[in-house]
Amino acid sequence: MKDDRILLAHGSGGAVSHSLISDFFLKIFTDPTLKRLDDSAVLELGSDRVAFTTDSYVVKPLFFPGGDIGRLAVCGTVNDLAMSGAEPRFISVGFVIEEGLEVSELEKILKSMAGACEEAGVPVVTGDTKVVDRGSADQIFINTAGVGYIKDGVDISGSNVKDGDAILLSGSIGDHGVAVMSKREGLAFGTPVISDCAPLNGMVKAVLDSGADVHAFRDPTRGGLASTLNEFAEQSGVAITIDESKVPISEGVLGACEMLGLDPYQVANEGKLVAAVAGKDADRALEAIRANKYGKDARIIGTAKQTDRPKVFVSTAIGTTRILDMLSGEQLPRIC
Amino acid sequence: MKDDRILLAHGSGGAVSHSLISDFFLKIFTDPTLKRLDDSAVLELGSDRVAFTTDSYVVKPLFFPGGDIGRLAVCGTVNDLAMSGAEPRFISVGFVIEEGLEVSELEKILKSMAGACEEAGVPVVTGDTKVVDRGSADQIFINTAGVGYIKDGVDISGSNVKDGDAILLSGSIGDHGVAVMSKREGLAFGTPVISDCAPLNGMVKAVLDSGADVHAFRDPTRGGLASTLNEFAEQSGVAITIDESKVPISEGVLGACEMLGLDPYQVANEGKLVAAVAGKDADRALEAIRANKYGKDARIIGTAKQTDRPKVFVSTAIGTTRILDMLSGEQLPRIC
Repeated sequence: MKDDRILLAHGSGGAVSHSLISDFFLKIFTDPTLKRLDDSAVLELGSDRVAFTTDSYVVKPLFFPGGDIGRLAVCGTVNDLAMSGAEPRFISVGFVIEEGLEVSELEKILKSMAGACEEAGVPVVTGDTKVVDRGSADQIFINTAGVGYIKDGVDISGSNVKDGDAILLSGSIGDHGVAVMSKREGLAFGTPVISDCAPLNGMVKAVLDSGADVHAFRDPTRGGLASTLNEFAEQSGVAITIDESKVPISEGVLGACEMLGLDPYQVANEGKLVAAVAGKDADRALEAIRANKYGKDARIIGTAKQTDRPKVFVSTAIGTTRILDMLSGEQLPRIC
Repeated sequence: MKDDRILLAHGSGGAVSHSLISDFFLKIFTDPTLKRLDDSAVLELGSDRVAFTTDSYVVKPLFFPGGDIGRLAVCGTVNDLAMSGAEPRFISVGFVIEEGLEVSELEKILKSMAGACEEAGVPVVTGDTKVVDRGSADQIFINTAGVGYIKDGVDISGSNVKDGDAILLSGSIGDHGVAVMSKREGLAFGTPVISDCAPLNGMVKAVLDSGADVHAFRDPTRGGLASTLNEFAEQSGVAITIDESKVPISEGVLGACEMLGLDPYQVANEGKLVAAVAGKDADRALEAIRANKYGKDARIIGTAKQTDRPKVFVSTAIGTTRILDMLSGEQLPRIC
């Protein structure tokens, strides 16, 4: 680490975050499971395999078009479990609340969490609440951790992407980040943008049940589609090429990104699935995703090839190819 | 809930916290496991029983005599798992960091966590880092969640305390709360007080391995010994009477509590075990606790009796008996 103080960029999900984790955390915490850097740890417990994950949520504002910090906290952890091929089973909740938060706001957040839990079919089974003095936190931060069950034979990891895999995307990108940003900054765009925040465990189950040979799942949250594809490339040692014309981006997101100087490929999503599937099974997996209410706009967006120079390429509508880099600094702080 | 804003007391671990949980959280989150209100949720997963728990840590200052926020975050979750009779197996860590935290401070905290993990024999297997802008948090908050494995035949719960049970305490009370308070307020007492922050999974294992018939374990953290005993009484429908002369309190803690107007029975501990054990097995359990490095001063401090008026009584040195109430408001904010 070259910095002597923590910067906002260390929490961005992009390159600076990755260096904090690789150069620092992984030198101190040396468990081999942690080093895999998947969305969940996959562990043996008794005679079973379980997935275990955690995320803290600090989104600002607490309520935004399409969601709120409570729905986000449940969906985020449900999705991290699902991305490891696990069936999410239990969620824990840890609140850090700033003294003075209105009880009515807390109630709205809790009810939204309960609604998301019901939709995902995953209960909150344990929790903790801390209150700090005024000015020591910003309204409320929520941590959720989750435990999932991995069926025999399921082996999903960002390091399993293989030569010839098709890369699937379940729908449009950038909606969550732009929705939160617009609300926070009071920006109005021609087309209102709604966060895609949603539980994806049903979609993942449908893909697994389809019998398609799936190698990796990931939800492109902080750092966006660009980070997810670069992670796949690095973890698996593959080059990924995607076709720009196949990646759905709404007009509202395009307009907002143009105005704000953002790359929609680097903007956070909270209800999208990226999957790497054996080429022969791509159509079967696509069909399963499209049958889910959150996957109607799913597409096959590219392919993976074995390489000794893992990179992500975008082929553009005008026939050129550019390298898609991971987000480097911080783009949109407190987006989740 | 009669309050319309969240107060510091809602995070105290005392009566106001309990009302927030009972009147509010448990009306919205209705899973039966959550309602048991033990230190961990005990769950079925595949063919195994697991314990699952979470806690957020907001202690101020970050470093105090005998520990720091990192050691506290590991020991707290290890202990919550152990108190359910589980063998702690895996820990997750979620950081919320205020922009500007010195990397050297973070490094000290991480190394302390790694040291506590090594002592407890429990690895960090998954994690998350969020960074918020300056002024939106106070240096660093840490959430840990943990998963443990419960062996066949083990059935430990605060609702299992039975008529005739002996109540055991593993050592002196009040050390953690007074150590943090003294450091924060710059108070000096005749005898310096050191936090008891320690992992107790080895001690719990020794008691279980002794073959003693254990009904309940709990670590008296926020709200102190008074809250733990009142929780046992309420959950199990028993009256508990403890002998004041048997409860070890250091001179430093006594002096500090007198000066600050605190009741040492309500001050937080972070490395003490309270156990309810069948009367016939009390000596065997005591021996097992005393053989552990953190249990040398263990005592049998009282007994439980079946009743329809669950209360906690303290018999004093002068032969009188007083009721020991749960902490009502907030006594020492940000103690863990």
